[in-house]
Amino acid sequence: MNDQHVTERAVFHSVDAATGEAFGPGFAVDDAAAVDAACAAADAAFDVYRATDAGARAAFLERIGEEIVGIGDDLIVTAMRESGLPRARLEGERGRTVGQLKMFAGVLRTGAWQGVRIDPALPDRQPLPRPDLRLRMVPLGPVAVFGASNFPLAFSTAGGDTAAALAAGCPVVVKGHPAHPATGALVADAIRRAVAASGLPEGVFGHLVGPGNDLGSALVKDPRITAVGFTGSRAGGLALVRLAQARDVPIPVYAEMSSINPVLLLPEALRSRGAALGTAFVGSLTMGAGQFCTNPGIVLAIEGEGLDSFMTAAAEALAGANAATMLTGGIKTAYESGVTHLAQHDAVETVARGCAPCGTGEAQAALFATGAKQFLADSALGNEVFGASSLLVRCADEQELRSVLGALEGQLTATVQMDDGDTDLAARLLPLLERKAGRILANGWPTGVEVAHAMVHGGPFPATSDGRTTSVGSLAIDRFLRPVSYQNLPAALLPASVRDDTAVPRMVDGVFTR
Amino acid sequence: MNDQHVTERAVFHSVDAATGEAFGPGFAVDDAAAVDAACAAADAAFDVYRATDAGARAAFLERIGEEIVGIGDDLIVTAMRESGLPRARLEGERGRTVGQLKMFAGVLRTGAWQGVRIDPALPDRQPLPRPDLRLRMVPLGPVAVFGASNFPLAFSTAGGDTAAALAAGCPVVVKGHPAHPATGALVADAIRRAVAASGLPEGVFGHLVGPGNDLGSALVKDPRITAVGFTGSRAGGLALVRLAQARDVPIPVYAEMSSINPVLLLPEALRSRGAALGTAFVGSLTMGAGQFCTNPGIVLAIEGEGLDSFMTAAAEALAGANAATMLTGGIKTAYESGVTHLAQHDAVETVARGCAPCGTGEAQAALFATGAKQFLADSALGNEVFGASSLLVRCADEQELRSVLGALEGQLTATVQMDDGDTDLAARLLPLLERKAGRILANGWPTGVEVAHAMVHGGPFPATSDGRTTSVGSLAIDRFLRPVSYQNLPAALLPASVRDDTAVPRMVDGVFTR
Repeated sequence: MNDQHVTERAVFHSVDAATGEAFGPGFAVDDAAAVDAACAAADAAFDVYRATDAGARAAFLERIGEEIVGIGDDLIVTAMRESGLPRARLEGERGRTVGQLKMFAGVLRTGAWQGVRIDPALPDRQPLPRPDLRLRMVPLGPVAVFGASNFPLAFSTAGGDTAAALAAGCPVVVKGHPAHPATGALVADAIRRAVAASGLPEGVFGHLVGPGNDLGSALVKDPRITAVGFTGSRAGGLALVRLAQARDVPIPVYAEMSSINPVLLLPEALRSRGAALGTAFVGSLTMGAGQFCTNPGIVLAIEGEGLDSFMTAAAEALAGANAATMLTGGIKTAYESGVTHLAQHDAVETVARGCAPCGTGEAQAALFATGAKQFLADSALGNEVFGASSLLVRCADEQELRSVLGALEGQLTATVQMDDGDTDLAARLLPLLERKAGRILANGWPTGVEVAHAMVHGGPFPATSDGRTTSVGSLAIDRFLRPVSYQNLPAALLPASVRDDTAVPRMVDGVFTR
Repeated sequence: MNDQHVTERAVFHSVDAATGEAFGPGFAVDDAAAVDAACAAADAAFDVYRATDAGARAAFLERIGEEIVGIGDDLIVTAMRESGLPRARLEGERGRTVGQLKMFAGVLRTGAWQGVRIDPALPDRQPLPRPDLRLRMVPLGPVAVFGASNFPLAFSTAGGDTAAALAAGCPVVVKGHPAHPATGALVADAIRRAVAASGLPEGVFGHLVGPGNDLGSALVKDPRITAVGFTGSRAGGLALVRLAQARDVPIPVYAEMSSINPVLLLPEALRSRGAALGTAFVGSLTMGAGQFCTNPGIVLAIEGEGLDSFMTAAAEALAGANAATMLTGGIKTAYESGVTHLAQHDAVETVARGCAPCGTGEAQAALFATGAKQFLADSALGNEVFGASSLLVRCADEQELRSVLGALEGQLTATVQMDDGDTDLAARLLPLLERKAGRILANGWPTGVEVAHAMVHGGPFPATSDGRTTSVGSLAIDRFLRPVSYQNLPAALLPASVRDDTAVPRMVDGVFTR
């Protein structure tokens, strides 16, 4: 949409994350007419796109990946400048982006995503015959995807939501994140080339850009949009949920928002390897300037042997952690405000700070500590501070640990550091962890989300607006599907995937078969 | 909860649907304290209940069915008097209620409902090892179920929502429908006996009764409730959705609300069997006094040979259709108001009326007709009239038929009457039908919803508040589940269903296996 009405529209620029200075050519700000055109094109493309067979759609997803790789180093250099993220991280993110497109291509080829169920007719059943019933999942319709600032590739223009929605058979209209418009434009062009090369209607993919909230609001309100994917702040996600619910026809919003990802240090693990845990923890805390949804923002420990070693090692590691460039000036300001609030809190002790910043866009890591009673007395201590800040909560015993855990909001992850001697305690805590989080880890760190079939990157509110789904991994395709049942349809009218000779895995009379 | 605080609380009575007169002993109106107690008990029972193995939970569901059958004829006689529904219908409904409990018992025993996925660790993968990831579905938590007036057994106290939630491992708190308190009390007692006989905590099942909306509001607002199932009016369903969204922690509401279930009469079918279709249509329209969510409230036909035969036969059949007792005085009043609105509409012709009522609670069936242009000019003509009223819309051609279909809101069902010569037309219409409805039928009638694995009783808004699910059939268990992923958990800590030696069907590295 960027090349329409340029003469009439405002222009905005990329900003160098390290210096805060604008650079490069301007991007025309998309307006209501552009939203309307993108949604009309997506709606018109829907029936054609969803009728493509799974193999063709799989090849299209792979082609997007090839086109992204084909951009070459320009993509990495552009994303580095706009996001402040280092080369290795962005090269890894590009690999992840291409990898998840390939994963969904594989999912499409197995056919299991269609959830086919067949209950053949029982014409002689008494007192009434059973009709022939066949069920498959169908795509919802055009999907709006909001790019995230913290993953300019893997959770943005061609990120997980886009890949899952396209795999499901839904056209996508991306609202690009204004923190990386040049990166977004490169990726959007790559997707458009793949659309053209695959002989698909242009409306399969739309791309809208601009600062401010009006553009996104107009997109979510458009009656042709049938679902929304979002990764970002709690305020932003909740605003989209409200807009979606106020529509004449409400639609689902999959917003991944706010999580502080508790890490539990159990007694035996602390005793045997407190210092090693402290060092490793700081590695997870400071990775990517702490700008992960899965950043370990809270640590719960039962007082005892090894906790001092953990604290000492963590403080030492943090004191040597370089300041790091944050994604945007706004994120840096919010981070510093959150850190200041903790540092000045009467009940909070500052354990350590990272190296002081030397560049304009850099922020300084932080580790704080408090007691369980103090934490329970002030729920604001559980608020997310997006960036490399964490709060250790000292608990007197298991009961206090349970109380603090129980007081936490819904989380993307919960991590347990445990040795064999902690197994009974961990087993007692597991039901509570399952109620709080979408992913439970042992003896690892929450940062680093594998793109896999068994991954859940989601969790109870407010970690996400819909804890029944995931935004990473192949299960994410379910977000953009709904079931349709066909009763007594003549064979000539049945969709191929629910015919008797279908090759897709299916449930027949309640039993899975292939 | 009925036996608590009786001395302090108001009392309400059963009403005879045929006469409008109160009868039987009074039922104490449950208050806020009863809601709190039921939710506290459900929350306390959750971890114990969800930890039961699938076999024990299956046996519990079967025991509920046995206890319901064990009530004997008293259940049928009571339900007949409270609902006005005939014996055969209620005996069938009892069979359906017991049948769906058995179906979910079978689902539990297969284990497929847990959606287990395993991605084994790849310790040697470059550049980073892959962790061990295992996913299963876990129950959401305590579920509130609102009984429906039109199915006092199958969609009420021990109905589909209750069966699906209990199968998923969720305790249930039922808000019984005030139109059949005596029926509800008999069934609630049966469930309580099954809870006790199965050695489960009492809080697995709670039952609250009372007229008015305060009770249901308090239940949906209770922070321990994690999801809501509802079958009823659009106004009622939307009110619950708003309450659920306004909570500090919003929760999903599965409300089945409003549907007029279009029936399309295609040209060849009309030509070959117009009269037979007219007669059969009236059978579907008047079944159960028209009080089905799937009642065929709108018929779309392309003008041509056979349509007159359809109309003549339908008018004749309707003229001989007995008046029938409606469920409640309120439903009868709303029905008569909807019929009067159509009868007095300038653009609507009254084709036929059923026999005049002779009893107080009876209503008279109605068939109306209008043209496509008139229908498109007044969207109120598409509003549901709950009861035996339908509107035939004459369309000049396929394009007009598409326009009328396109103007309809989301539906539970869409039915096509077609002969072989209609196949091409039906195939062109199918994508639009898929966008509008959750179930598509050929050469049948929408009333009669089979309890099966491949059934979808759901559909786009406003047919339901969440078209991604079904309220009938085994897929309904998914409403009350969410995914949790376990990363690198020691074997000793892993839930049984995701261990290497699990017997449940699972996806390993993206491939289904058993």
